[in-house]
Amino acid sequence: MDTKLEAFQDYYPDDYAHCYGCGRLNEHGMQIKSYWDGDESVCHVKPRDHYTGGMKHILYGGLIASLIDCHAAGTAAAAKAREEGIQLAPGAMPRFVTASLKVDYVAPTPVGVEVELRGKVLEIKGRKVTIGVDLLAEGKVCAKGQALMIQIKETV
Amino acid sequence: MDTKLEAFQDYYPDDYAHCYGCGRLNEHGMQIKSYWDGDESVCHVKPRDHYTGGMKHILYGGLIASLIDCHAAGTAAAAKAREEGIQLAPGAMPRFVTASLKVDYVAPTPVGVEVELRGKVLEIKGRKVTIGVDLLAEGKVCAKGQALMIQIKETV
Repeated sequence: MDTKLEAFQDYYPDDYAHCYGCGRLNEHGMQIKSYWDGDESVCHVKPRDHYTGGMKHILYGGLIASLIDCHAAGTAAAAKAREEGIQLAPGAMPRFVTASLKVDYVAPTPVGVEVELRGKVLEIKGRKVTIGVDLLAEGKVCAKGQALMIQIKETV
Repeated sequence: MDTKLEAFQDYYPDDYAHCYGCGRLNEHGMQIKSYWDGDESVCHVKPRDHYTGGMKHILYGGLIASLIDCHAAGTAAAAKAREEGIQLAPGAMPRFVTASLKVDYVAPTPVGVEVELRGKVLEIKGRKVTIGVDLLAEGKVCAKGQALMIQIKETV
């Protein structure tokens, strides 16, 4: 029984569900799950212990960029679906790719704790959607990201 | 016998060698290696097969950001060492953290092939070093990155 089909990523078409960060069909990946929380999107994830930065107690910056990218892609897709009134069902989610990603690392992120990603839709302009994402750990913003996402034309 | 101590990352102090992307002491990580090639820095790496993007044949964008970040950090450290005339030996490499990272994804990157990272030192201003990195696959630039790296004060 698929009673848990409710995260943005659960509605991606199968051929788009292989992402290491957020693809439900990537058995080696992180399979992050993003949801609406009012006008913002939210994702909670506890990174694996080996995702350390140079120093053992700091989370890997590349992973932080990865999480922000994936959560932004999911938020862009969900925002576009909402704007177009698409009835969400498995496979019905629009697909987006990242055109550009910017991350500002404002404080060290600790390892061994759950991090929270909070996304905001900054602009929807046709196939281009801009998303802002904050990454928080222990209630503190540790990184701020912005991503320009482009909808793939052959989307259902 | 440590006859292969020659990549930038081989000179990082032990307490800074745990990075998932480039730390020689992270047994789960990618352990990328960066070198000078004239005025540019270069790194070759073949990502693991499971680092796919949404679609199976495209490399994960988060991994691309990760590789650019790590290669930029290594290049910043090596550039600073060169500027200061530091004699490279194990542990003698300055340590840097990422302040900001920007990646433009200009073309899909294929999976299953070796990628090349080419770094350029754009500016050295005290403890701040700005690095530009191109990521190429099959001879084509697929992503362009820029990173602002900050030297950690307690560096040897």
